[in-house]
Amino acid sequence: MARTYIRDVHEHIDEEIHCAGWIHRVRSLGKITFLLLRDRTGIVQTVWDDPPELTLESVIQISGRVIKNEKAPGGVELQGTSLKVLSAAAPDLPIPINQDPERLSIEALLDNRMLTLRNPKIRSVFYLQSDILKYFGEYMRSRDFTEIKSSKLIGSGSEGGTGLFEVEYFDRKVFLAQSPQLYKQAMVANGMERVFEIGAAYRAEKHETPRHLNEYISLDIEMGFIESDQDLMDLEVGILSYIFEQVAGNNADILAEWDSSVPTPAQMAAAPRISHDEAKNILSERLDKRVFELNPEGERELCDWAAETAGVEAVFVHSFPRKKRPFYTYPLDRKTMSFDLLFRGLEITSGGRRIHDYEMLVDNIRRFGLDPEQMQDYLQVFRYGCPPHGGFAIGLERLTQKILGLHNIKEASLFPRDRKRVSP
Amino acid sequence: MARTYIRDVHEHIDEEIHCAGWIHRVRSLGKITFLLLRDRTGIVQTVWDDPPELTLESVIQISGRVIKNEKAPGGVELQGTSLKVLSAAAPDLPIPINQDPERLSIEALLDNRMLTLRNPKIRSVFYLQSDILKYFGEYMRSRDFTEIKSSKLIGSGSEGGTGLFEVEYFDRKVFLAQSPQLYKQAMVANGMERVFEIGAAYRAEKHETPRHLNEYISLDIEMGFIESDQDLMDLEVGILSYIFEQVAGNNADILAEWDSSVPTPAQMAAAPRISHDEAKNILSERLDKRVFELNPEGERELCDWAAETAGVEAVFVHSFPRKKRPFYTYPLDRKTMSFDLLFRGLEITSGGRRIHDYEMLVDNIRRFGLDPEQMQDYLQVFRYGCPPHGGFAIGLERLTQKILGLHNIKEASLFPRDRKRVSP
Repeated sequence: MARTYIRDVHEHIDEEIHCAGWIHRVRSLGKITFLLLRDRTGIVQTVWDDPPELTLESVIQISGRVIKNEKAPGGVELQGTSLKVLSAAAPDLPIPINQDPERLSIEALLDNRMLTLRNPKIRSVFYLQSDILKYFGEYMRSRDFTEIKSSKLIGSGSEGGTGLFEVEYFDRKVFLAQSPQLYKQAMVANGMERVFEIGAAYRAEKHETPRHLNEYISLDIEMGFIESDQDLMDLEVGILSYIFEQVAGNNADILAEWDSSVPTPAQMAAAPRISHDEAKNILSERLDKRVFELNPEGERELCDWAAETAGVEAVFVHSFPRKKRPFYTYPLDRKTMSFDLLFRGLEITSGGRRIHDYEMLVDNIRRFGLDPEQMQDYLQVFRYGCPPHGGFAIGLERLTQKILGLHNIKEASLFPRDRKRVSP
Repeated sequence: MARTYIRDVHEHIDEEIHCAGWIHRVRSLGKITFLLLRDRTGIVQTVWDDPPELTLESVIQISGRVIKNEKAPGGVELQGTSLKVLSAAAPDLPIPINQDPERLSIEALLDNRMLTLRNPKIRSVFYLQSDILKYFGEYMRSRDFTEIKSSKLIGSGSEGGTGLFEVEYFDRKVFLAQSPQLYKQAMVANGMERVFEIGAAYRAEKHETPRHLNEYISLDIEMGFIESDQDLMDLEVGILSYIFEQVAGNNADILAEWDSSVPTPAQMAAAPRISHDEAKNILSERLDKRVFELNPEGERELCDWAAETAGVEAVFVHSFPRKKRPFYTYPLDRKTMSFDLLFRGLEITSGGRRIHDYEMLVDNIRRFGLDPEQMQDYLQVFRYGCPPHGGFAIGLERLTQKILGLHNIKEASLFPRDRKRVSP
């Protein structure tokens, strides 16, 4: 007989149904035993007269009659008639599954990742993340972008060679890509014009902060025939507005579980766009000290400023100085056509217009102390006709973290990698 | 004024419009010059009285009046009124873009990948691939699967440590994952029940064949509460039927360009399911020699047999011997609940039911000469309650190759990696 998912049990009052799942909690009251059964769709109370000895997290298959019970969670319970153990859990569970995960330290959460992901609240982060991937793809395709998959094994670093993980590739060394920068630009230049990629990015940086991962998922976008970086900010407002609208509509239960909310499209459209110089002035005034660059404290303060003045904790900072951006960034006087998006105190995007002119690019490579000879593959893209273009990347884990208000970005990665952690 | 895409030009007869794109071909007839303009949506003929000196592949922006001309490709042409060069291409194009790519060797195609991708027919492979990714995700979500992103940096090999690329990870060595096997099983066990992943997989194998890549995109699936590997084959028939149906409906132009077609859902449902022993018997009879295992020749021959007997070039081979499958494969007597799917002469999927019982798994790890002590993270998944489950993986590039009939799998990877090739 077919399995009924727990979310649907209430549709079967007075019927005999079959369920399957994990034993979430056990409570005995005299002769009666209450078993909470958990599947991927919810938790239901089941009642037994004389059940076998059972351990938490064991996987069982049961039959039972659905009864209305206003005291039970969800208003229904199952009076069990038969129970079969599919997989008995060992009794020495090293960490509680059925408690509020806020009680556990981040280390305990991650050291026991294979088990803590069983907690429904922790798992909900990744149901949301799955949906964010869906919404992102839907929006990009609706705007006629093509999804690409580029190689993560590259012969040399695109931005000077620091911060790269080295890979033994047969009889030579290659590196893990920090971003698909070269490839997404190449795909615009070769005629796809509009591309996006969902892929892993690697940073061999020895940071240990709540906002950094050494391996993360980058939502990358590149677009041809733009006029300026304002076109890119418009596109990002469109992407995030769509994602937030879908999250608010379809994932309200997860937002509620994490006591969070998302900006409306109108709020996103109102996100201020200020230059790097303006940002420094605002910070200097608010912090009552001369501010020379945007650090994490400044990013938080600017989002507070945006919330106060525009009603949204999001702000684009553009026109960064040339020396603060990579060599391929399009210059505009002593500044660049580039931007960051700060959201709820954190930079979640970096992007800008790119240099598409071959000579200008060669000049800029030299200006940055790099060697054009070492970048012939890259330069070929621009030597044979390349439209004006630009793009940006959104960090999937940062976006997830900020939507739900997670303390640490590692909570938004299923199996996070940091300087010390490569397992599980 | 807004840009008109070339696919829409025919809707603007007698109007003045603006287009932008690449110069695909130039032909002069006396005073008149015909420029073929290419954008991501098509190619249109434009006519000029006295155009500036232009090189192939230069990116231009033009204005012109749309005229009916039955002799022109698409039945329309643009009489140019103004032309602006956005990016002049160098005149020394090392390889032709506007010719049939079949004339080029695979080496020439890949050595000049940054340029050969400009060819519309070559680019069409990746428009199709983008859509396959879309269709795959749509189908998995419609069946209530959750998309996951697991780490590609692993502390040890899941299948014995051969064929792994080594990564220098700060002060230690880690490996690039050959598959998300451990992680997708863990996500089923921790309560997600049904997961899929689209991610890179790495094989450090020194093959040099038209069917192998050292880096490829794996469409991975894992599903809990199955009864047998037949459930998995049913699921794969559903996935491929959906993908093929969508390709036939939405990508008919690309199929036509490559002179290819896809099986119907009815044909996929008729794909034979035979045991490994049956497969050997069929091959022994057809090849008139004793066949002991399935090699590439055998895979092609079995697909021919399926075409003749079932009307589809697809066949599931199941019940592989224990020693031919990984340690985690669920045993059934001296065989296993495992299968491959052969499609048009090539194995495009490998999968099966997995061992979910902790003791059985520890036994099998020992039987394979591996050390359970080295697999504690993996074993923890099964120690604390894991439902019966199984899964499989489809190679994205192999699927693309076989849909279009590409000679070499490298043609189905934007930037393929092989033993000698790590650029561009």
